[in-house]
This record gives sequence, C-alpha cells and structure tokens, in this order.
Amino acid sequence: MTNPPTVMAALEAAIAASEQVVGTTSPNPPVGAAILSAEGELVGVGATQPPGGPHAEVMALRAAGERARGGTAVVTLEPCHHVGRTGPCSHALLGAGIRTLYYAHEDATPPAAGGAEWLRQQGMEVHRLDVEVPTLRPWLRAMALGRPHVTLKCAQTLDGFTAAPDGTSQWITGLEARAWVHRDRARRDAIIIGTGTALADNPSLTARTPEGELLERQPRRVVIGRRSLDPERTSNLHRLGFEQYDSPAAALAALWEEGARDVLVDGGAGLLTSFLEEGLADALQVYVAPLLLGEGRGTLCRPLARTLAEATRLHQRSLHQVGEDILWELTLDRDEERNPACSPE
Amino acid sequence: MTNPPTVMAALEAAIAASEQVVGTTSPNPPVGAAILSAEGELVGVGATQPPGGPHAEVMALRAAGERARGGTAVVTLEPCHHVGRTGPCSHALLGAGIRTLYYAHEDATPPAAGGAEWLRQQGMEVHRLDVEVPTLRPWLRAMALGRPHVTLKCAQTLDGFTAAPDGTSQWITGLEARAWVHRDRARRDAIIIGTGTALADNPSLTARTPEGELLERQPRRVVIGRRSLDPERTSNLHRLGFEQYDSPAAALAALWEEGARDVLVDGGAGLLTSFLEEGLADALQVYVAPLLLGEGRGTLCRPLARTLAEATRLHQRSLHQVGEDILWELTLDRDEERNPACSPE
Ligand SMILES: NC(=O)c1ccc[n+]([C@@H]2O[C@H](COP(=O)([O-])OP(=O)(O)OC[C@H]3O[C@@H](n4cnc5c(N)ncnc54)[C@H](OP(=O)(O)O)[C@@H]3O)[C@@H](O)[C@H]2O)c1
Ligand SMILES: NC(=O)c1ccc[n+]([C@@H]2O[C@H](COP(=O)([O-])OP(=O)(O)OC[C@H]3O[C@@H](n4cnc5c(N)ncnc54)[C@H](OP(=O)(O)O)[C@@H]3O)[C@@H](O)[C@H]2O)c1
Repeated sequence: MTNPPTVMAALEAAIAASEQVVGTTSPNPPVGAAILSAEGELVGVGATQPPGGPHAEVMALRAAGERARGGTAVVTLEPCHHVGRTGPCSHALLGAGIRTLYYAHEDATPPAAGGAEWLRQQGMEVHRLDVEVPTLRPWLRAMALGRPHVTLKCAQTLDGFTAAPDGTSQWITGLEARAWVHRDRARRDAIIIGTGTALADNPSLTARTPEGELLERQPRRVVIGRRSLDPERTSNLHRLGFEQYDSPAAALAALWEEGARDVLVDGGAGLLTSFLEEGLADALQVYVAPLLLGEGRGTLCRPLARTLAEATRLHQRSLHQVGEDILWELTLDRDEERNPACSPE
Repeated sequence: MTNPPTVMAALEAAIAASEQVVGTTSPNPPVGAAILSAEGELVGVGATQPPGGPHAEVMALRAAGERARGGTAVVTLEPCHHVGRTGPCSHALLGAGIRTLYYAHEDATPPAAGGAEWLRQQGMEVHRLDVEVPTLRPWLRAMALGRPHVTLKCAQTLDGFTAAPDGTSQWITGLEARAWVHRDRARRDAIIIGTGTALADNPSLTARTPEGELLERQPRRVVIGRRSLDPERTSNLHRLGFEQYDSPAAALAALWEEGARDVLVDGGAGLLTSFLEEGLADALQVYVAPLLLGEGRGTLCRPLARTLAEATRLHQRSLHQVGEDILWELTLDRDEERNPACSPE
C-alpha cells in the first residue's frame, strides 16, 4: 500500500516529465508516468515519445526495470488499451507486475479507452486522482472538440494597444517576454497568423533563442486569408515554407487531419477577432507591457458585445511576471456562463 | 548591540503599525516605530496619530515605558527635530534613554530635518537602513514635488475598455475588487473625478463596506471641471458635500494647502488623460477584468504618443490577484527613462 503523499510526489514527477515533451507528441497526448516500487520508492519516470515511439508508461517501466514488480504506476492519463503503433499500455503495466494504478485524466478516445476498467478486471487496484494536469488540457479539449486546441496570443500595452498610432509595434514587450514567446512556440504544433500580419511584418514564425538561433523544434507555419502572399514582401515565409488556408475553420480542419492538436494564433487583430467571433478560441495568452499609448491599434478590431453583460468572460489559468511585463493566461469555456456580475438575474 | 535580524523584525513591526494609520495622518507622514529593549526584546510599537496627536516614536516609547532605557528605536522615517504641534521626537528618544537608532527614510523637510544628526551629536549610535518603506512613498514624493501624490485608478477589460459600446460599465470588476477599491479610498486624503463622471454616474465617492455601510474614514470628495453640477443629476454629491476645481493643477494646489498628501483620481478617461498629459500622475492602479469587449470606451481618450518609442513607460510596484480580476500597481517616474527597448540608442 503506497501512501497518498508518495503518490502525489510521483504525480508531480510524472507531470514534470510530461512538461519536457509538450510539442513533440501530437497527435498523441504529452503524458507523464512514474513508477513506485513495492516499497514506495520512485524507481522510474517517463513521458510520451514522438509518434511511433513508446508511450509514457513504457518509458517509465523501462527505467524501473525489475523494481516495478509489485509496485504502483502513477500516470497523468488513463493507460491506453489499443494496439496503435505501439502495444497497449494496459498490457505493459500488467506484464511488468504493477499492482496499483493511479491516473489523473480519463482517456475517452474510443479506440484507446477502457484501459482502467480492463486492468481492474485483471485484479489491479485502480484509482482515479481528482486533479487537473495542465499539460494535458489542450489535448483533452482538442479530443472533445474534434479540432486543435486554439490559443490566441497578443502583446499589448496596459491600455490595450498592439501598435502605436503610426503603426510601430516593435517591441511592446521586453526581452524576457519575447524569449518566453519563442519557447512557447516550440511547444505548439502550429503558429497561425493572418495575411495582414504576414504582409506587414514579413515574419519568420520560427521559434528562436534570444540570440536568434533556431530552437530544436519548429512548429508548422500557417497563414489564414485569401490574399496571395507576394514573395518579395513575405520572403521569410517563402524561404522557410508555409501553409495557407482560406478561413480559420479550413485551417483547423486541415491541421487536425495532419495531427495538430495544439496551435497558437499569433495575430493580428483581424484574425484574433475572427477566431473569437467564430467560437474557435479556447485560451488566451496576453502579454501586457507597462506602457500607455492613449491611442493606437486595439488588440481586437470588431465589437464582440454591445453591452457589458454580453462581454466575453474568460477564466484565469495563471498569472506571471515576465521581466517588466505580465503574462496572463486565461481560458474561454464556451459552456461556462457569461459575465455573471452583469446579468440581470 | 542589537543584531540585524532583530532590527529588521522591528522594522517589519513598525511598517505594519504604520499600515494601520495610512489615511489618517496627513499632512503628517504615516510613520511606524518600534522599540527594542537593551536585551533586544520588542517592547513597544507605535504609529503616527492624527494631526495634533503624538508621533510614532512617542507612541512606541509610551508602550515600552521604562524598558526603552538603553534600548534601540527602529523608525520608518528619520525622527523629527522641530517643535510642531508636538515636541520633537529627537528629544523624546534621547529623554527615554534610547542608545541606538535605526531609521529607513530621511526626512528632508526643512523644519523637521536634522533629527538624526542632532542625535548623533548627543552620542546616540545612529544607522540609516537601506530599505524602501512603501507606506511612506506617497508622502515622500508629495514633499519632493510640493503637491499631493496622485494615483490614477481605472477598472478595465482585458482589451482596455472601461465601458461597453452602449455605455454600460457596471460592473467591469468583481465584488472582491470593488471591496478593495473601497478600502483603498478610506486610505486616501481625497477622491477626485471629472464632471463627466459626476454627471454620468451620480456617484457618492464614499468608502463603503460591501454591504454599503460607510467606513470610518471618508476621503474628501473632489470634482474637476468647469461645468456646474446639476443638483438633480448629482444628488449624491450634493447631499454629502464636495469641492469643485477648474483644473487638475488648481485642485492639487488647493488640496495641498489644506493638508492633502495622497489623493486618488477615480476617472473618467478625460480626467485621467489630463493628469497624464500635464505630468501630474505619480502612480497607476489598474484593475483588469477577464473580459473582452472588442470595442467600447478606452481607459484614456487622447493619444499620449504617436510612436511606440514615446509611449509612457511605467514601473511595476505590485501585482495582485483580486477575485477573478488582477490589480496592477505601477509608478510613473518622470525622471526615469522612457521605453528603453524602443529607443534607437
Ligand atoms: N502585438 C501583437 O501581439 C501583434 C501580433 C501580430 C500582429 N500584430 C500587428 O497586427 C497588424 C496586422 O493586423 P491585421 O488585423 O491587419 O491582420 P491579420 O489579423 O494578421 O490578418 C487579417 C487577415 O486575415 C484573414 N482573415 C481574418 N479573419 C478571417 C476569416 N474569418 N476568414 C478568412 N480570412 C480571415 C483576412 O485575410 P484576407 O484579406 O487575405 O482574406 C484578413 O484580411 C500588423 O501591423 C502586425 O504588426 C501585432
Ligand atoms: N471604469 C472606470 O474605472 C471608470 C471610472 C470613472 C468613470 N468611468 C466612466 O467614464 C465616463 C466619464 O468619462 P469622461 O471622460 O466623459 O468624464 P471625466 O473624465 O470624468 O470628466 C471629464 C471632464 O473633466 C474636466 N477636465 C478634464 N481635464 C481637465 C483639465 N485639464 N482642465 C479642466 N477640466 C478638466 C472637464 O470638465 P468640464 O467640461 O466641466 O470643464 C471634462 O469635461 C462615465 O461613463 C463613467 O462611468 C469609468
């Protein structure tokens, strides 16, 4: 019998391992697993390998070796139960002699589902942990929605502007925030912008170090809009290659088909507003700089509501100080109520 | 000899005591003092009483009684050295047998200054602590500027709006933030609004509990602008009484004369913009609600800059989560450089 603090510590280790593989696993989820020996010692930790590679449970079992026998597995997601490119994790856990299983999220995806139930039938002691694992949130929501999880990103002044009246916008946020953005890009399956931003900024849409060197992992580069992108004005995208789609829905459908589960929309205002209007946004990442402009280009470009009671309400996920700026991460849950403080009832 | 950790703990106690009197001491500073016995035990804490009452040092010495003899005084501000409505604190400390003095901020005000130097001459061991005491910041800046310290306050959506397109603005922030605003009002010498807000909202400008009961201390109610305030449309202000001035500068000059040192400008956009344009703002308190409107009334109403390099740069003081909202407190230091990331050099 393993005591709950040990299980929670193992879960922390599993989550930390899964953090390391975010961005490398799609269409599979970035799962983390930890193995405790029969004595309650942490003997193995692992995370999902790139598609075709072993799942988290197998990685953790390999690290644990014989010490897994009679032990406990702690996994961020219910072990899969289907023969995909790898054998089912349910079988691997049983075969390694695991006696007790703790898992956080259920895997409701039809072919993979049923792992916990099957293990219970084989006599394993199975517990579901009532915790939310942040690294799994995009994948879980993507699976529920049947399209990639969409995060909108913007960098704005305190008073809500993304560019000054003369159009200058580099740089609103400081070095630390920009480095943070680039690390975040490397964790996404795709970076999406509108033709407006492509033509105005000639962006590369790469994930880079502060010194300008490419990070190991690069997301797909995606542009949305009907205008054709003049190779002169968008030389960086033409050099590196990009995909273009006619609409947000078309882009998300194609990206989903090709395995993307977690994508970032990096502006501009026109495209962010479209994603919000079309109900295609799941999260917002807003970097706010301690600057006031008084006037300029807004973060969005069309009204989402005429009256306050109909404003789009978000829910905080995290708040960080990043250098002189702040990063506020929020979610948009369409099924949750709108601004309750303003509604008449 | 008292060791530094004990001195820092005494300073914490002094600061905590001064926190309690913020808003009740103007034109005097909200000072805190703590007394350590010769053995290094905390034997007395005190803070500035309302004008005419004892200063912090005297309150702390009273609490300590005979145990102050041979002990150490730790004060947030250099002890005063002039006979105002009360005797000089320098004399009180010496008379009580204090051997060692630690103080944080210098008191450079001409009549009060010189306390530390005089005590040193009398043989007291005197040390200046290199710390910033937040409760003293408004008073110190007011004394340096010769006008009250001005904090601009606004409550806005994530995308920088203070009202929806149809004008609705109640309530952008949640209950917790509104309660916080009211507690903050009770700590200010005056609450200032523009005639626009007075006429649009018929505000009371009182500091209230969430249940609507008046808090013990009420700031002065001030309106800026030339329009006369129709008693029908501004019945709350007329019932409670208010002062009206023609301009920000006129208001600050009159408030200064009457002893105000720390005032809050509570909107609207027209007045906030004027204070910024006229260089009369020292700090900003922005409550940001997790709402998106896309369009509406902005926090400010005129451009402060045409190009990003000339944006007004602020400096973070604190960041709080207040219910679902955030409160970002920042300072505007006119003497500090502008947005360095954007300047050409
Ligand atoms: N501060 C920041 O975080 C940030 C980030 C990115 C960009 N920016 C700035 O934002 C500016 C560009 O913004 P923008 O609003 O002009 O351009 P944008 O949002 O990048 O692109 C707008 C274009 O996207 C396409 N689009 C948008 N919604 C669509 C929909 N529902 N269906 C099909 N196509 C759709 C349209 O393309 P077509 O007209 O081609 O059909 C539209 O013209 C630049 O100055 C850039 O520097 C700032
Ligand atoms: N969300 C929030 O935090 C918040 C807070 C407060 C108010 N509000 C909203 O803001 C709206 C009102 O905003 P507003 O911009 O119309 O009004 P306002 O800023 O309250 O008042 C503007 C008036 O202030 C006077 N004024 C401003 N600058 C001046 C200067 N330099 N010299 C002399 N007088 C000056 C002028 O009065 P005269 O024209 O009379 O000379 C001007 O018309 C209301 O709808 C209110 O609900 C929101």
